[in-house]
Amino acid sequence: MQEVKIFSPATVANVACGFDVLGFCLDGIGDEMIIRKSKEKGVRIVVSEGFDLPLSVEKNIAGVSAQALYKKANPDFGFELEIYKHIKPGSGIGSSAASAIGSVFGMNLLLGNPFSQNELIEFAMKGEALASADEHADNIAPALFGGFTLVKNTKPVHILQIPTPRELYAVIVHPQIEIKTSEARSVLPQQIDLKDATTQWANLGSLVHALHTNDYTLIGESLNDVVAEPYRSKAIPNYDMLKKTAKNAGALGTSISGSGPSIFSLCEGKDIAENVNKEQIKILNSMGVPFETYVSKINTKGVTIVK
Amino acid sequence: MQEVKIFSPATVANVACGFDVLGFCLDGIGDEMIIRKSKEKGVRIVVSEGFDLPLSVEKNIAGVSAQALYKKANPDFGFELEIYKHIKPGSGIGSSAASAIGSVFGMNLLLGNPFSQNELIEFAMKGEALASADEHADNIAPALFGGFTLVKNTKPVHILQIPTPRELYAVIVHPQIEIKTSEARSVLPQQIDLKDATTQWANLGSLVHALHTNDYTLIGESLNDVVAEPYRSKAIPNYDMLKKTAKNAGALGTSISGSGPSIFSLCEGKDIAENVNKEQIKILNSMGVPFETYVSKINTKGVTIVK
Repeated sequence: MQEVKIFSPATVANVACGFDVLGFCLDGIGDEMIIRKSKEKGVRIVVSEGFDLPLSVEKNIAGVSAQALYKKANPDFGFELEIYKHIKPGSGIGSSAASAIGSVFGMNLLLGNPFSQNELIEFAMKGEALASADEHADNIAPALFGGFTLVKNTKPVHILQIPTPRELYAVIVHPQIEIKTSEARSVLPQQIDLKDATTQWANLGSLVHALHTNDYTLIGESLNDVVAEPYRSKAIPNYDMLKKTAKNAGALGTSISGSGPSIFSLCEGKDIAENVNKEQIKILNSMGVPFETYVSKINTKGVTIVK
Repeated sequence: MQEVKIFSPATVANVACGFDVLGFCLDGIGDEMIIRKSKEKGVRIVVSEGFDLPLSVEKNIAGVSAQALYKKANPDFGFELEIYKHIKPGSGIGSSAASAIGSVFGMNLLLGNPFSQNELIEFAMKGEALASADEHADNIAPALFGGFTLVKNTKPVHILQIPTPRELYAVIVHPQIEIKTSEARSVLPQQIDLKDATTQWANLGSLVHALHTNDYTLIGESLNDVVAEPYRSKAIPNYDMLKKTAKNAGALGTSISGSGPSIFSLCEGKDIAENVNKEQIKILNSMGVPFETYVSKINTKGVTIVK
């Protein structure tokens, strides 16, 4: 195999009560990449389309993770990357993770899969760190595995795949304002009340239980964030109204995707998801901010080869 | 039915990463009570054996919860309670919860079960509040339901029953020093690092997942408490050595039971549990502190009628 075309999906991290640990994977929204062996050694980005991102390997997230893998593999050939980016950087739906995991997933395939999934995550975390000044895996893990993932540890990498109820759909609203992950992190306090922390882990334990038991009602009751949302929601115009609209339209729960500005809602069934989307669009239209929305089944496959 | 004899089990709360929310039920360790209808209205404690506890209903945990139920039920007869207490108050294995739920469980039976399980928990929480100045349910819930329980909310009561892997055994060490729940709570900081909180909820999510998937290794890897243990373990003599001994003898994990001084270890299989117990007894014998130990399968029944 000389080249491979892959689809690297968008993802939602910080799933309400799952700050920094829980994520899930979206369907139909993601980047495409062609990864090709080249005679010339080293990694080169030969195409970067979609957004104004650097071709320089050291300054490009997909390049940094690719370089990390390349150094470890040390093959007697090189790699060319063509990046067709569809997930807007800074949108809060795992744009950097899709870049970071996409390149190394494709390179690993062309090398005959010498690296484990955990090693791919480690390489991708090097790319993530370029975007957020921190090595985290809560978008990378669902982008690689699909479904819901819980990052138990990053050093060493230990990811748990949590079951995904079949009828679970996500609705994403992306108001096109930019919030950098590093800035969104700086608005959070370094310390939190033990009482709030306890509420948060009761909800996370409950959400994991609900995903195992296909309990959609309990999923909704668990999707509460008392830690990050009170701070981060302030930067998102009409957040409370969008959340309330989703609830009234039947969503199980709504919270901030990653560090925003995107907002996700989880819904039982496609019809409710489309209704939530329709009602939120009415609000968005009245806001005068450009936006995009997506309705997506939870993607249980993760990054895949495009046939 | 004029009278009923019940067994109300000991329990472990604050299961490492599950501070204030996760508990499990012990087998073979618990209080016995006889609850009897009487012509005279009101609740009376006619026997209280085992420890020097007040017969006055308002000052006795079993009496306070009984009184709460009695007021709500308002029957045209009364109840007598005989309490045979085997769980030492202040031991950290749910002595007050066993008292609090035992009386109301028995009274509900004699009344023909007018109250739901959640209502019984609410009555029992009134009793718990006498002991700890706080209405909590993390020992009451496993004492009532058995197995592992997660207290999602207390207002209103919302308890989740988490599956119990079949081969899971607990080893309890009770060094006979007294730590009051209210004092143990006061050593904890009101605020904790967001980083520690995140570690704690990653572990709790992981533990719930491990219980659902019968993953004993992951149960062990999840039994870490970075929030309460660093503070509370200081009051327990030789805590670190007892924990290390348990690990070396094959325990999955070890932490403080409730607010101490009891320590619990979880083990895969009875043989390992007995080995852990044996090795810990060697340490305890050298300490010069009186102690009791128990080896117990996880009790999946909770409070029961004694035939």
